[in-house]
Amino acid sequence: MQIWFRHNWIVREQWYDWCEELSEEELLRQRTGGVGGILHTLFHVADVEWSWIRALQGKPDFQESFDGYRSLEKVKRLDRDFRPEVEQFVAAWNDGMEARVLREIRPDGSAAVFVWGEIMRHTIAHQIHHLGQLSIWAREIGKKPVSANVFGKGLIQPGDA
Amino acid sequence: MQIWFRHNWIVREQWYDWCEELSEEELLRQRTGGVGGILHTLFHVADVEWSWIRALQGKPDFQESFDGYRSLEKVKRLDRDFRPEVEQFVAAWNDGMEARVLREIRPDGSAAVFVWGEIMRHTIAHQIHHLGQLSIWAREIGKKPVSANVFGKGLIQPGDA
Repeated sequence: MQIWFRHNWIVREQWYDWCEELSEEELLRQRTGGVGGILHTLFHVADVEWSWIRALQGKPDFQESFDGYRSLEKVKRLDRDFRPEVEQFVAAWNDGMEARVLREIRPDGSAAVFVWGEIMRHTIAHQIHHLGQLSIWAREIGKKPVSANVFGKGLIQPGDA
Repeated sequence: MQIWFRHNWIVREQWYDWCEELSEEELLRQRTGGVGGILHTLFHVADVEWSWIRALQGKPDFQESFDGYRSLEKVKRLDRDFRPEVEQFVAAWNDGMEARVLREIRPDGSAAVFVWGEIMRHTIAHQIHHLGQLSIWAREIGKKPVSANVFGKGLIQPGDA
């Protein structure tokens, strides 16, 4: 699980760097699909990651909308603020937590049951899914997207072979 | 690792079902980004998954292009043909394989070193990335994409809590 999160954080930083080359207009432009824009996607990824980790800890969720974070610097700062808590939780993850249950009450009063191991994987896949969307928008504006390769990032030390 | 592959296979089948609603023209239409089309993406996902699993086993790669598979039925059949070998390899995966090394010679004669655990995660992330791209194209043609949620698929049996 730790390997996946490290991967995702590396790639997210690469997308932040990629965004530096874009005008604020391009970052904020309304686009079709996903959450509707490049910077909004990065906000959403950081927000959802942190919100699920909060939920697994039984802590209250982040309730602000993207409206207050419509600049690259603000999104990066928010992500930096969220990160230590996520890192701490991920570092402490172990197999014994996989099947734990999270119960939530939906707005309509019904109960939702989530399994911790599924939520962690959802958080990971959620970022990869949304950054895949960014890669389409990148090409639409004529720019090369950040690589989606998992290898080449030094995530696992090679053994002797 | 097994949980991730099971997730990916479920989602891929859902995208195949989703494709049934589309005309051949939409499935084959050239689009911006990724590998350039909806059906080509699904072909690419199945091809890359199988090719990496072959490489880890030291077996020769699949060398055919999408040109021979330009119908939903042909791509689904190819995927069905590939699947048993991938399933068998994934089922036998264990932590002791994480740091194993795969050496490949690039066309220019230089050596590339890959770590098995990174390749497995790359194969998983590769699908999620490309299906994220499909979700944009789905909206562009006015259709709801397949859900990218990891939870709700019965991947992990909830424990007592």
